[in-house]
Amino acid sequence: MAGESEKSGAVRKLPRIVRTVAELQGLADEERAARKRIALVPTMGALHAGHMALVRAARARADRVWVSIFVNPTQFGPNEDFSRYPRPFEQDVALCGEEGVDLVFAPSVEEMYPTGAQTTVEVGELAKPLCGASRPGHFRGVATVVTKLLVAAKPHVAVFGEKDFQQLALIRRLVRDLLLDVEIVGVETARGRDGLALSSRNTLLVPEVRQDALSLVRALDAAEAAVAGGEDSADELLRIVRGVFLQAKSAELDYAELRDPRTLEAAPQRLCAPTLLAVAARFPATGGGPDARVRLIDNRVLHPKPGPEERP
Amino acid sequence: MAGESEKSGAVRKLPRIVRTVAELQGLADEERAARKRIALVPTMGALHAGHMALVRAARARADRVWVSIFVNPTQFGPNEDFSRYPRPFEQDVALCGEEGVDLVFAPSVEEMYPTGAQTTVEVGELAKPLCGASRPGHFRGVATVVTKLLVAAKPHVAVFGEKDFQQLALIRRLVRDLLLDVEIVGVETARGRDGLALSSRNTLLVPEVRQDALSLVRALDAAEAAVAGGEDSADELLRIVRGVFLQAKSAELDYAELRDPRTLEAAPQRLCAPTLLAVAARFPATGGGPDARVRLIDNRVLHPKPGPEERP
Repeated sequence: MAGESEKSGAVRKLPRIVRTVAELQGLADEERAARKRIALVPTMGALHAGHMALVRAARARADRVWVSIFVNPTQFGPNEDFSRYPRPFEQDVALCGEEGVDLVFAPSVEEMYPTGAQTTVEVGELAKPLCGASRPGHFRGVATVVTKLLVAAKPHVAVFGEKDFQQLALIRRLVRDLLLDVEIVGVETARGRDGLALSSRNTLLVPEVRQDALSLVRALDAAEAAVAGGEDSADELLRIVRGVFLQAKSAELDYAELRDPRTLEAAPQRLCAPTLLAVAARFPATGGGPDARVRLIDNRVLHPKPGPEERP
Repeated sequence: MAGESEKSGAVRKLPRIVRTVAELQGLADEERAARKRIALVPTMGALHAGHMALVRAARARADRVWVSIFVNPTQFGPNEDFSRYPRPFEQDVALCGEEGVDLVFAPSVEEMYPTGAQTTVEVGELAKPLCGASRPGHFRGVATVVTKLLVAAKPHVAVFGEKDFQQLALIRRLVRDLLLDVEIVGVETARGRDGLALSSRNTLLVPEVRQDALSLVRALDAAEAAVAGGEDSADELLRIVRGVFLQAKSAELDYAELRDPRTLEAAPQRLCAPTLLAVAARFPATGGGPDARVRLIDNRVLHPKPGPEERP
């Protein structure tokens, strides 16, 4: 809401656009030497209100807010939507200007992957289940590009959305493991009025199937309600979740899984601690032929009621 | 020679010893904010005159010289000499003091690999041949720990020896690929009076076989002499190299290969451009039972004479 009133004011000056790593690192060194705190918001562009929530979280924690816009080819599979991914750059820069972003880093693919590049960063166990199982190589691409962006921008803080729960867990892990001197902040998923988690890919949905896409959040709501009612069986919760997707004719469920939110290990049959419910599904997409699909994800951490023996 | 006269002076004050990444990064931020250039010399300790040549190269390029001493477990194979690797820490620190090193970073394994660490850095093609083929996983360990050390020390310059030619090529590549804001400097291999390349592992050689270990440098000399005499056949040069090792009774040749110094691709049958000759061999070692071996490496870039059609 605070953002709404800010946005109603005059358009602020446009952010500085930086295209090269060398220029960005020079600016980072200057800001750091002047004891200014830098917050980086890494994005793939096609910015929406969810990104703007990240920008506001960044602003609250730093003197300078930098947004990177880079559609990273190495995190897309060969049959995924890299070429279709929306790239409304001018509009993105204007949105950044409205939110008072100081700098937009928008490098070319060649700038981020120099000729002959052959170095990858890989996170182990956290990258294996969920989207890691559905999208082979995806998290290698994410870990590699996020490392590069953090190295390029030298921020004190970097802000990511909780919609990509596994990505956030993996980035926290790689920052700790590679000893990167940056604080990682996760921001709650922003949603449309109808509850759909905001995603740049939502614009690819065939309009008539937006109702079906709501099966993602409805499934999470249904599971949460069941847990609130005392349900603690993993099988029963997943049965409820699958039932919601069965009612959405155009939805193709990719996965629905219950996992430990910290390690992403499979949850036990009887839930007894906070448990991640993560869902991914495909829906008809515009602009890619009759079989085109857009894959959307969502998640929620469920808090099962303590059993009788655990109650005070 | 310059170093000799410096070393004959009084012992300088001991360097500051830093054990944690957080302290190191704080100091790096202070130095960088004060516009001081930091040079890092990453080592596994057991310092010798070769390391001191790296320190002097570092000193020539920076205001602060930091030496890291860390025997990195992840770059040793299960049957390699991690436990036997020499660790004369007090002596190393004294040597650093004599050379005017400002800071020694000596972290624990737990500090470099936090509990649950699962992130690795991997370089592709450059890591496959030579020592990469002989020591599976070795260069993954090297790439991971060098990335961490560069992230932890935030140096402007990092200095490595050319004895580990493949390692140096791989580090140059990973720094470029990960966009690390550091200049990599390679320093010519330091040698004993008898020509043996200085290595911390030389202290593990059974004294009577040091003559056999000289087969490494003799093989390089023989190949270089043949090239100077007009030889340009890869097969013939490798025959000459193997002949030298055959004369050293205790030597077990691991590999002798001719490769492109930039890409490490196999050299053509007729050498027509500067070509890396890399050799690795095992020799009887002390302190690890009767079958213990120490593995030593050496290399030289050969410059074949231009053919008749290329002469001016």
